[in-house]
Amino acid sequence: MSALLPLPEDIKHLLEEYLPGEKPFLTLTYAQSLDSRVSAGPGLRTVISHEQTKTMTHYIRAHHDAIVIGISTFLADNPSLNCRYNLNKHKIRPVIIDPHFKSSSKLAGSKIVENYTDGTGLKPLIVVSRDVNSSSTEEFDVVHLKCVNGRFPWEIIVKKLHELGLPRIMVEGGAYIINSLLTEPKLVDSLIITIGPVFLGENGVSVSPGQNVTLENIKWWTGIQDSVICATLK
Amino acid sequence: MSALLPLPEDIKHLLEEYLPGEKPFLTLTYAQSLDSRVSAGPGLRTVISHEQTKTMTHYIRAHHDAIVIGISTFLADNPSLNCRYNLNKHKIRPVIIDPHFKSSSKLAGSKIVENYTDGTGLKPLIVVSRDVNSSSTEEFDVVHLKCVNGRFPWEIIVKKLHELGLPRIMVEGGAYIINSLLTEPKLVDSLIITIGPVFLGENGVSVSPGQNVTLENIKWWTGIQDSVICATLK
Repeated sequence: MSALLPLPEDIKHLLEEYLPGEKPFLTLTYAQSLDSRVSAGPGLRTVISHEQTKTMTHYIRAHHDAIVIGISTFLADNPSLNCRYNLNKHKIRPVIIDPHFKSSSKLAGSKIVENYTDGTGLKPLIVVSRDVNSSSTEEFDVVHLKCVNGRFPWEIIVKKLHELGLPRIMVEGGAYIINSLLTEPKLVDSLIITIGPVFLGENGVSVSPGQNVTLENIKWWTGIQDSVICATLK
Repeated sequence: MSALLPLPEDIKHLLEEYLPGEKPFLTLTYAQSLDSRVSAGPGLRTVISHEQTKTMTHYIRAHHDAIVIGISTFLADNPSLNCRYNLNKHKIRPVIIDPHFKSSSKLAGSKIVENYTDGTGLKPLIVVSRDVNSSSTEEFDVVHLKCVNGRFPWEIIVKKLHELGLPRIMVEGGAYIINSLLTEPKLVDSLIITIGPVFLGENGVSVSPGQNVTLENIKWWTGIQDSVICATLK
């Protein structure tokens, strides 16, 4: 596991008001290209942000209890979903939104399961539809929620995570998850987007919500390569 | 005509290396939302950038001889395309890329023609396909170029503008024009994008080139509301 770059001091100050305090909190954060793509194509793991903003992501993770991604991101990236900022001082619980339990055959040997079994990560939590037959194992937990029109309403997911003792939630992607949360101003407490100075092109996976979304409390930060916007949804 | 905000001093310094000197130069510049939309929908005039970055646009115009837009932008926006930075000290020639001469019936009464007739703007130049019957009038000039597969190759447009004594070219949009120039690194000398902190949503007009585009010489500037990236195409 490679070391992180040092965190720039000024970004700590900037992020202060966009990170959780004592109360339940949901942070939506991701990295995109200038043309609003989160990957070069479906299923392709694509590095967009600088190592420096990767450090920022781990710093943000250190302020949350759960890190949520969609099943497509899990299948495409096999991500670690752990917190390497001040290594091992904070652990964050990986949560995969996976209505049809597509991760079933991919969890064994995955990084999130490995991190759990070697003690560097918390036990992964897979959120599966009530209609799908599955149960927790030694390596991961399964929770069943009710799907509405093929997806879980965000309020239901958030309520369940709160019940499970995970009040500070960080959602990282992918595009489907991000697009659906961007139109949930009551649920999203802060939005942190890293913009990498590249165009991934029209075949990339696009982030764009179903409707116009206005932001408030806007602050920009610029690093070595990327720009970061922090905001709240209006 | 409303007054512009004062230009922030630090942006002058930032823009210095991204603006033309004595040599022929092409600047591609536009404003986009976070989700890389340049308008809320086809034909819709959409304000994305802050008044402050509008001032920047007029400052950039003051360093160019020609301002180029596509026919769709002309029809949607009826833009002024003049330079209001240090009002009337610099005039910039409006150029519309209009292969089929769709602007024909819309030029009379348009702002670009009005600016020319009242002396606050230069004579508009309409770039029309050789196959289309049209000629210059008192109110606008027509130049005919050869279309290849329904569009003008950029080298041909640039060459013609140079011949006409317009070596410093600023291209402002819309999406079709931008997407086609983003894959022309030999022709584009600088790229200046203003990013407004808003999502226009999936029905908006998207900027995204046909392929991956990498940038170099990257600098970011942040204003009251927007972030500006200056770069060159790799």
